[in-house]
Amino acid sequence: MPIFDKPATAASRYSFLDDYSEGAHPALLKALLASNTSQEAGYGNDAYCEVARQRIRRHLGRDDVGVFFVPSGTSANAISIAACLRPHEAVIAASSGHIVTRETGAVEASGHKIINVVPHNGKLTPATIQRAMEDNWHFPHMAKPRLVYISNATEIGTIYTHDELAAVRRCCDDNGLLLFLDGARIGTALTSRVNDMTLRDVLELTDIFWIGGTKNGAFLGEAVIVKDPRLASEFEFYVKQHGSLLAKSRVMGTQFAELFHENLYFELALKANLAAEALSDGISAAGFSVSATTETNQVFAILPLGLIKTLQEHFIFYVWEKRGDDAAVVRLLTTWATDTEQLEKFVGLVREWVG
Amino acid sequence: MPIFDKPATAASRYSFLDDYSEGAHPALLKALLASNTSQEAGYGNDAYCEVARQRIRRHLGRDDVGVFFVPSGTSANAISIAACLRPHEAVIAASSGHIVTRETGAVEASGHKIINVVPHNGKLTPATIQRAMEDNWHFPHMAKPRLVYISNATEIGTIYTHDELAAVRRCCDDNGLLLFLDGARIGTALTSRVNDMTLRDVLELTDIFWIGGTKNGAFLGEAVIVKDPRLASEFEFYVKQHGSLLAKSRVMGTQFAELFHENLYFELALKANLAAEALSDGISAAGFSVSATTETNQVFAILPLGLIKTLQEHFIFYVWEKRGDDAAVVRLLTTWATDTEQLEKFVGLVREWVG
Amino acid sequence: MPIFDKPATAASRYSFLDDYSEGAHPALLKALLASNTSQEAGYGNDAYCEVARQRIRRHLGRDDVGVFFVPSGTSANAISIAACLRPHEAVIAASSGHIVTRETGAVEASGHKIINVVPHNGKLTPATIQRAMEDNWHFPHMAKPRLVYISNATEIGTIYTHDELAAVRRCCDDNGLLLFLDGARIGTALTSRVNDMTLRDVLELTDIFWIGGTKNGAFLGEAVIVKDPRLASEFEFYVKQHGSLLAKSRVMGTQFAELFHENLYFELALKANLAAEALSDGISAAGFSVSATTETNQVFAILPLGLIKTLQEHFIFYVWEKRGDDAAVVRLLTTWATDTEQLEKFVGLVREWVG
Amino acid sequence: MPIFDKPATAASRYSFLDDYSEGAHPALLKALLASNTSQEAGYGNDAYCEVARQRIRRHLGRDDVGVFFVPSGTSANAISIAACLRPHEAVIAASSGHIVTRETGAVEASGHKIINVVPHNGKLTPATIQRAMEDNWHFPHMAKPRLVYISNATEIGTIYTHDELAAVRRCCDDNGLLLFLDGARIGTALTSRVNDMTLRDVLELTDIFWIGGTKNGAFLGEAVIVKDPRLASEFEFYVKQHGSLLAKSRVMGTQFAELFHENLYFELALKANLAAEALSDGISAAGFSVSATTETNQVFAILPLGLIKTLQEHFIFYVWEKRGDDAAVVRLLTTWATDTEQLEKFVGLVREWVG
Repeated sequence: MPIFDKPATAASRYSFLDDYSEGAHPALLKALLASNTSQEAGYGNDAYCEVARQRIRRHLGRDDVGVFFVPSGTSANAISIAACLRPHEAVIAASSGHIVTRETGAVEASGHKIINVVPHNGKLTPATIQRAMEDNWHFPHMAKPRLVYISNATEIGTIYTHDELAAVRRCCDDNGLLLFLDGARIGTALTSRVNDMTLRDVLELTDIFWIGGTKNGAFLGEAVIVKDPRLASEFEFYVKQHGSLLAKSRVMGTQFAELFHENLYFELALKANLAAEALSDGISAAGFSVSATTETNQVFAILPLGLIKTLQEHFIFYVWEKRGDDAAVVRLLTTWATDTEQLEKFVGLVREWVG
Repeated sequence: MPIFDKPATAASRYSFLDDYSEGAHPALLKALLASNTSQEAGYGNDAYCEVARQRIRRHLGRDDVGVFFVPSGTSANAISIAACLRPHEAVIAASSGHIVTRETGAVEASGHKIINVVPHNGKLTPATIQRAMEDNWHFPHMAKPRLVYISNATEIGTIYTHDELAAVRRCCDDNGLLLFLDGARIGTALTSRVNDMTLRDVLELTDIFWIGGTKNGAFLGEAVIVKDPRLASEFEFYVKQHGSLLAKSRVMGTQFAELFHENLYFELALKANLAAEALSDGISAAGFSVSATTETNQVFAILPLGLIKTLQEHFIFYVWEKRGDDAAVVRLLTTWATDTEQLEKFVGLVREWVG
Repeated sequence: MPIFDKPATAASRYSFLDDYSEGAHPALLKALLASNTSQEAGYGNDAYCEVARQRIRRHLGRDDVGVFFVPSGTSANAISIAACLRPHEAVIAASSGHIVTRETGAVEASGHKIINVVPHNGKLTPATIQRAMEDNWHFPHMAKPRLVYISNATEIGTIYTHDELAAVRRCCDDNGLLLFLDGARIGTALTSRVNDMTLRDVLELTDIFWIGGTKNGAFLGEAVIVKDPRLASEFEFYVKQHGSLLAKSRVMGTQFAELFHENLYFELALKANLAAEALSDGISAAGFSVSATTETNQVFAILPLGLIKTLQEHFIFYVWEKRGDDAAVVRLLTTWATDTEQLEKFVGLVREWVG
Repeated sequence: MPIFDKPATAASRYSFLDDYSEGAHPALLKALLASNTSQEAGYGNDAYCEVARQRIRRHLGRDDVGVFFVPSGTSANAISIAACLRPHEAVIAASSGHIVTRETGAVEASGHKIINVVPHNGKLTPATIQRAMEDNWHFPHMAKPRLVYISNATEIGTIYTHDELAAVRRCCDDNGLLLFLDGARIGTALTSRVNDMTLRDVLELTDIFWIGGTKNGAFLGEAVIVKDPRLASEFEFYVKQHGSLLAKSRVMGTQFAELFHENLYFELALKANLAAEALSDGISAAGFSVSATTETNQVFAILPLGLIKTLQEHFIFYVWEKRGDDAAVVRLLTTWATDTEQLEKFVGLVREWVG
């Protein structure tokens, strides 16, 4: 007997809309089940969070960093930024950054100005950061730039190479700036075909960053990594004040313990990337171009409007922007859970259209 | 094979510390499992949240109220209060209120002053609210009282009767005040032996309130009920801006759909209350007094220090405050998951001590 | 006997740097002196503020608007915006706007995001506002645009015509936006050669605006005009909470009473404009071009570097930006207090250079 | 010829209501006049502010402290506290403190909780601070106490002795707390009959404090003294962000330069104290008691209702609270400007009543 009947509104078409359409990976569910009856201390002091922190630290290669679990990417960003800044300090971010375009002004709600810069292929560069510094020097009449926000993978699926991130780091050092990395999709970034960084490199090159669970197999949860011991020692206050210190943090602890048990986290991300590659290759093989190289789990393909209409009969995805009168860019997201059959059906329809 | 070995730090003594030591109720876990593979829209637009909203509205007897899921009690309180107030408006709350003593200044962090009043048995009364109004009239040099915060059950486990809540409501109306009810433990309140209210009464007598999931069987999640349609229409902005709009809100939707399937929510709360009653009765029968009548799932018992020491060998609980040289008040919390055997063992030890 | 010796750091070169280098207009000083010994009620309830409000209302042609005195432009902007918005609402402003570039993130410090748009000749247009609306629709993941901020005169000295402001107003109405006008230099705007608006038009076309005293003859003080009676009834709370309700508001009241006694406010502004025109004409007559039409009290002239160097021996002014290898744009500000002799000396040096 | 006719609402009865009913001291007005025509740099970089800073530093006996001028006491308090604290840190203050009762929640508006403690004779003591620490230890669920706010003179006119302040300082050191002193009436405190401290002692014993101008002879302005060089180096950002960095800070500079020219500041305060003493003595001599010792410029006298009625025909003052059926406490404030004739008339009426 079902808990409740399949709700009428449930999607009947397969979705390539985003990377949070599914529930949790079965291994995480199983861990949740196994842990369910044990009594645990609240607010992150439970045994599962402790194991998760140890396993994450092992992956990071350092015992002495703070690891904090929060329920959402917006809370991870807002808390981290508020914890790092004095009231008059500002953030430098790409105008395409998630904190700029998709978080309802949460950073500003905590009192901080975001200085927008134009991204290059979704990324910040030393030159654009330097330019932002030069445009914001008129003190004390301007907020003082103090933290650079970047995302890896970026909001359009591109990634930073080691050289690129190291250059940003140097630029930050030269300008007295902290470097904060939004890792909502750090798994797909670090398992990208074109990636040359490890999690340890990210730790070394940034001041604070987070590892996204929600978009890589968990029901919820992001792990914020705090290097500065003084900041780490008070970080829970910020988490609690933002309403993000869950009484049953064990729910996040269990899942992260599982994700960082051996290499599961990166295996799931790699699956998402490979699915994207397959989609991208299939579309290219049929003679259509992609509007950006597929580096992670986002495919941007330019398709004729007629084909898009046909595809929409079977699939859900974003039509991103028009290209001329007869075509448009569509965005397709894949995950660890992407159904291979559905993927092949999609590519098949593309091929048929040409055919 | 266990997901990971039993962590060394896990409690070996049974805990009466709080009502969030366990995971989720098995029925909720089962629902999570059953829902896991379906693809769903993000941010609360999924089918499970929709079912949960419908079922909660059915219990409330009204179709037209807003229902919003947030991950924690602190976020429910901070968001609701920030959504209701203009920057210069203040909250009236008992000095024992959760927002005063256990939320790291989250209300003040959103810019609002809390005017503390002395509680009577954990509760606000028209007289104390009126007094707060009279002490805060010197406008515009004082923040303007605009919202009354109460908890039901209160932080010490007492509950409001219908008459008491109606009187507070009238006092609010007379003074242009909104009435907000923190329902972290509304389940145990409405199933208390001495309760004479329904969920519909609470809806009628307040402006905004929330139904706690975390302390009554869920992994996480509280459901905020918003009556004012204008406020409800923009409420998601606040939820999102606070980092509390989970991408996979389905996790909360599934659990609340299950909790409000028929009467499960209240059945779980009743179990917690009955366990507390059994504890309270057992302790009283052994000749010890309770320092406050046990109305919900919190027992405050006055025990000799020697007995407390003995109990601590087997159980974890809070020693609340000294009573003379030889005794102390202890706090014992029960839940839907309280183990009857452990409870009987506890009472047995109390009896033995006397005997 | 001087109060103290001429401080060593005092400027020996004449300044065209800004419009707040001098003290107060003599008529205002005289009024301050005359009022000094009377005992008055505090916090704006004095007789002088009352007279000032009446005189300003007479100029506005309406008895029923709120008039509030605050000590600075930054406080006028931050208070007005915070008073109009809910926490999730955002401001649309030109990227050159004073709140964006010169107020240390004061708007963000009160929790609100500013959506920057590219200005046209320092101004917003319906097209740019409409574009900002179209870029910020993804609710509730984006802050909700709710208020348009404009300056008149703008930060580069240009002004809105009646048609232009009326068009912005219609665009605001179509999009549910409030229109807020920063009038730090509203005097020079409304006495510009090319102006076709009155103070009454500004009142009619905006929701809230302010009349700058600091840059037009006063020691300090800006008068915020609030049309919405509900907002006006609580506006003093915001002023007080921001630390801007001066105990001796009489200082601002006396000066504004004098400025709006007959037409003094506009006479002073006109003097500033005429001085700018004389400068501009003199420079043009010598064969140099101005980089923007001189509409108010700001002159932007393109001069050879050699001439600039000569001028700097006698005057202080901003060198704004390079123009090729041999020239630069300089910015010259005039006021009611600009010394005609110094102005002529400046023009004389320009003429001599040409020879 | 008057600038405008005596406004109809102007007081015809002499006021003992507060210490900001008059304009500025004549010497300050004269300094304003003398400085008026010189061109000066804006935002506190003018020669007058520089002289004022030097003179204040000379009184403080230290060259290396930051001195910042802001327009109001509320801004001095809100800015200082916001500049000292991290978002999760709280203030300990007497429930009678100005920031608690008369500043419209400005501290909370900047995000910080105030922990109220019961004052002893208007003052905090080590015991009450220690108690507040013990009540606020449950981290991270409680905001972290970090700063103690005191006023000297207090809100009821009492003062701290050197021993009392030193004891508070030690308590702060023991608990990792900053000590902030609101010096709105520091002049009357340090010239009180019972005072044994100097301005240098205050500097030594506190971390940050301010010297009030508004209530001691100035039109406006308070001077915030910042010892910590790192805080001082960024303090102007906070001042600007709060809208308190006046373009013509010269207005405050001129006045403070004059107040701290030799000993004027303290001479004015002493005059206020002596007037209060004369009032207090006169009332006592007539056989009435004062409800608190008159230590500074506030007199609290217990008078029969009939006498109060008679006095109200000629004077304005606060009736503070009833005392039995036939008497009440009245509050009388004196200043440097208190009119000796009026004072004698007041005492005369008291004497007559006894008759």
